[in-house]
Amino acid sequence: MPPERPAESPRRPRLTPAIADARRAVREHLADLAAGDLLLVALSGGPDSLALAAAAAFEAPRAGLRAGAVIVDHGLQPGSAEVAERAAESARDLGLDPVLVRRVDVGAMGGPEAAARAARYGALDAAATELDASAVLLGHTMDDQAETVLLGLARGSGTASVAGMAARAGLYRRPLLGLRRSVLAQACADARLQPWHDPHNDEERFARVRVRHSILPMLEKELDAGATEALARTAEIAREDAEALDQMVDEVAEELVELEEGGCSLPAAWLAANPAALGNRMIRLVARGEFGVALSRAQTLEVARLATDWHGQKAVHLPGIRVERTAGRIVFTLAPEPASSPAES
Amino acid sequence: MPPERPAESPRRPRLTPAIADARRAVREHLADLAAGDLLLVALSGGPDSLALAAAAAFEAPRAGLRAGAVIVDHGLQPGSAEVAERAAESARDLGLDPVLVRRVDVGAMGGPEAAARAARYGALDAAATELDASAVLLGHTMDDQAETVLLGLARGSGTASVAGMAARAGLYRRPLLGLRRSVLAQACADARLQPWHDPHNDEERFARVRVRHSILPMLEKELDAGATEALARTAEIAREDAEALDQMVDEVAEELVELEEGGCSLPAAWLAANPAALGNRMIRLVARGEFGVALSRAQTLEVARLATDWHGQKAVHLPGIRVERTAGRIVFTLAPEPASSPAES
Repeated sequence: MPPERPAESPRRPRLTPAIADARRAVREHLADLAAGDLLLVALSGGPDSLALAAAAAFEAPRAGLRAGAVIVDHGLQPGSAEVAERAAESARDLGLDPVLVRRVDVGAMGGPEAAARAARYGALDAAATELDASAVLLGHTMDDQAETVLLGLARGSGTASVAGMAARAGLYRRPLLGLRRSVLAQACADARLQPWHDPHNDEERFARVRVRHSILPMLEKELDAGATEALARTAEIAREDAEALDQMVDEVAEELVELEEGGCSLPAAWLAANPAALGNRMIRLVARGEFGVALSRAQTLEVARLATDWHGQKAVHLPGIRVERTAGRIVFTLAPEPASSPAES
Repeated sequence: MPPERPAESPRRPRLTPAIADARRAVREHLADLAAGDLLLVALSGGPDSLALAAAAAFEAPRAGLRAGAVIVDHGLQPGSAEVAERAAESARDLGLDPVLVRRVDVGAMGGPEAAARAARYGALDAAATELDASAVLLGHTMDDQAETVLLGLARGSGTASVAGMAARAGLYRRPLLGLRRSVLAQACADARLQPWHDPHNDEERFARVRVRHSILPMLEKELDAGATEALARTAEIAREDAEALDQMVDEVAEELVELEEGGCSLPAAWLAANPAALGNRMIRLVARGEFGVALSRAQTLEVARLATDWHGQKAVHLPGIRVERTAGRIVFTLAPEPASSPAES
């Protein structure tokens, strides 16, 4: 009789390529944290976040960090509390500590996906503050990024909509953006972890599910097997571009924008002399920052023409804002009347 | 018996909304030309370019301009000479003058679509030079633009690939980028023009045809009926962004780049202090401009890390270029050895 092979502990799996990829991705995103810092994994129990939790449980102590987990129970499906409890058990089995389960109430604002997202990030923010965590790790993959880019394209708001999700934003970090979903499923299988499969991921009423099941596979089939990677790479470059231009506009805004009675103004000469990418961003920044109004592309261009194509136009009426050119400045003032009113006051 | 209604001349059609849209689009793109200038319409005989030819024939004389047409016979299909001759007849009927038919030989470089495009633009360039034309009008529509964006996305080279086709580039102008293909088909029908339908437009072996017939309709169905407009709008904004950043890099390149023995160099401090959007563009500009090499995203980032994440790395070996950091400068030198060679020379 051959000698019994030692049982492998679920907490010390064989190092397979998929597990190595996940660990390396997490390791690279922890390098700037200080010894003793706490990081939290946002865990749904699905394959992506479960592989992330396993990688963080392995890497954090080796980097002198503590790693915990937060499970958000959205309460949207029967048995969601049990699903959350099972994910919490997995987290504890992996050695994460503390492990929190937070039940949230999902509202209706902006549709079911947006409302669930708002409730989830609210709970994660609160948990991070309460535990004084230095980072919250999210399990978004390259596939999620490609889906986000396609959803953004269908909205059509330009570079910003193509830029997808940031690898870092405040406390949040997305270490898995460079890895395919299939790699993380493999990492779970290799580590004998049992991920939960969210039935919402198959509901075609969600635009993201339709992108995942219909549009991306068709792009991969009809155009290029590497379409998912290409979309993710495009997001990375577009984000760089958007951040650079946003930063340039932010840097000069303070010196360019002057407060006026009931509003503010910009020098027309600056708008006329600079590239449209800067001028149009400055116009949108003023409308959003001073009036809380998000301008459409057409509205932005109409304001820009007061500087770039000036031939004595009348005031431009936007939702809640009136814009006109006076003494070489583009003057934005609060307009209580609705934008549809054609009357010049 | 009612009196006979006067026959409408095909050259003076009723002014319908579709015809008015096409004429307005052309008119806006002629405003900067000088009296007596010649513009040429690149005419395939298809609905888009035929509607463009009709609009140009109407608008040019009213703007004091002359309008001619160039028909390129690619010789790729049996009967292509007859198709070209029929398009030339339409152009003459519309009052365009001169009307040239140019037969080209399509090579094989870069695949069938790229080879046909290269031959076509070669013939258009030559005709414009020969006739001293001030502008060549191309019939690309909003649908073509959306298709170009999706094809670019599948390549994944970032903002530049999402930017689609320029409304103006050198002699070339694309007045119809703001109009849907359906509007131009309607303009032809309204004007009783008989467009030619290129059988290549139905051949699924062309990636563009697959985008047109499968991918865009699916995006419109699954995500948003306005996906085509959204893609075209994204292209416009991405182009603005790319042009602004390219211009900024071009402006500082002359003062930053110093010639070295067998190459050139950049100050590492400039790369480290500026946004990645500028730094990475500068690296690609040097590789392309000085060595004729188009760097991939991964190669660009590896060079950038010599400045942004310096910890004494070895030289980076790229196809035909060796890059290393010396005395605070990033030095690019010609490397005759293949990039796959790991040896440090």
